[in-house]
Amino acid sequence: MNGRFSKMHGLGNDFVVIDAREAPLPMSAGRAQAIADRHAGIGCDQLILIEPSDAADVRMRIFNADGSEVEACGNATRCIPLFLGQDVLIETKAGLLNARLAEGGAVVDMGQPHFEWDRIPLAYAMDTLTMPVGWEHLDAPSAVNIGNPHVVFFGGAIEMDEAARLGAMIETDPIFPERVNVNFAQILSPSHIRLIVWERGAGLTRACGTGACATAVAAIRRGLAKGPVTVSLPGGDLMIDWTPGGSILMTGPATHVFDGEADWERF
Amino acid sequence: MNGRFSKMHGLGNDFVVIDAREAPLPMSAGRAQAIADRHAGIGCDQLILIEPSDAADVRMRIFNADGSEVEACGNATRCIPLFLGQDVLIETKAGLLNARLAEGGAVVDMGQPHFEWDRIPLAYAMDTLTMPVGWEHLDAPSAVNIGNPHVVFFGGAIEMDEAARLGAMIETDPIFPERVNVNFAQILSPSHIRLIVWERGAGLTRACGTGACATAVAAIRRGLAKGPVTVSLPGGDLMIDWTPGGSILMTGPATHVFDGEADWERF
Repeated sequence: MNGRFSKMHGLGNDFVVIDAREAPLPMSAGRAQAIADRHAGIGCDQLILIEPSDAADVRMRIFNADGSEVEACGNATRCIPLFLGQDVLIETKAGLLNARLAEGGAVVDMGQPHFEWDRIPLAYAMDTLTMPVGWEHLDAPSAVNIGNPHVVFFGGAIEMDEAARLGAMIETDPIFPERVNVNFAQILSPSHIRLIVWERGAGLTRACGTGACATAVAAIRRGLAKGPVTVSLPGGDLMIDWTPGGSILMTGPATHVFDGEADWERF
Repeated sequence: MNGRFSKMHGLGNDFVVIDAREAPLPMSAGRAQAIADRHAGIGCDQLILIEPSDAADVRMRIFNADGSEVEACGNATRCIPLFLGQDVLIETKAGLLNARLAEGGAVVDMGQPHFEWDRIPLAYAMDTLTMPVGWEHLDAPSAVNIGNPHVVFFGGAIEMDEAARLGAMIETDPIFPERVNVNFAQILSPSHIRLIVWERGAGLTRACGTGACATAVAAIRRGLAKGPVTVSLPGGDLMIDWTPGGSILMTGPATHVFDGEADWERF
């Protein structure tokens, strides 16, 4: 069963994208792992499966390299209009996302953020703007759900080693029953934030689109920033715009690397 | 300038293979690095460029992921007959290699090993069968050149951490003026050797074809083994046959993963 695919990336977060609208491709954790294997497979951070949708133009499913299916991936979402060559309404596990082609990439309407403690989710009721909890020297963080759960710390510059140590600890804290993506933000100005993200299940990454959204939203809610905000990640910049009560707009690059053809029965 | 390529691997050592016989592809360290990049490029351990040859059927050039061009790669050599669909005489920087299709892979005539101290090369004249030098608790090793320089230690099982620590130290010892590939071998029987290889410029790898050859040759010279020898590497098994004075025959798997098409001007 030969099938075509494209390799794409958004700020170095790389994807194998497969159009499975006409030729369905049954996906298991084992097959996703085999495709994502960087030595014996095609190699990617996430496998993106484009399927038919009743609710939108297409349905996007996202599989991590460990085979687990996840709800949201901002970097992958920006690749979809480039992959399909048109503006597109995308059905995801995190809701409907509108993605439009833009110079060098895409603008994605990431929908509305959620702040209710049980929507993050947290283990029990508490303020999510300034969480009354602490980890070592870190200031009280904010919690935001952008289709997936985020906690955002504001402070000074942080070393990668230290972000990895704290991220691993906080990701699995029982206060986050579905674990959490951990954002370490440094406010450079009201329109510019530097960000390091420890991604749930993936560790430190070059760029996390939903992390940039969660961080900009938390900064705007706290009065530390005003949209549009440039979020500088190790892999490059994203522009995030949000006004309270509205949807989050994420603008950033998407890159097509190559097209390929593989025999899916061998994976 | 769109061009086709294949992704292949031998025991998990993975390659981007490009047929540049009809459409020459100028290669620089920067372009090789960009192609080998696993996030923003195609991704591979080594880039293999097939060019026209006056001396053989084809010429094979091998570029590491850091952009440096190297002389020899046993795992890549096994992929060439599979890539071209025929038995083939290959010109390399390490000499002419005959590679024949075999069940699931290939048999490669790796040529004759060299034992002269200045062919390894070593920094000064010494016995290469039992080198009169020592590193910590390791027994006196043998040195062999298989197109590239190898040092082979025989002993018990070794932990990966320990192999990495010793390998990094020995690779850059001034006694090896062109650095060296470091082999840690455990004789299981006269026909079976377990092997861990620290590759020059690459560190611990799943499988090193020239390391398996060097190790089997050194074991046969020392009377510890008798060909054919199965060499078990973390990525799988190779069969090495050699009789003193003759060529080394390496038999092992080669796997085609997928075909792709990329715009080389973007790399």
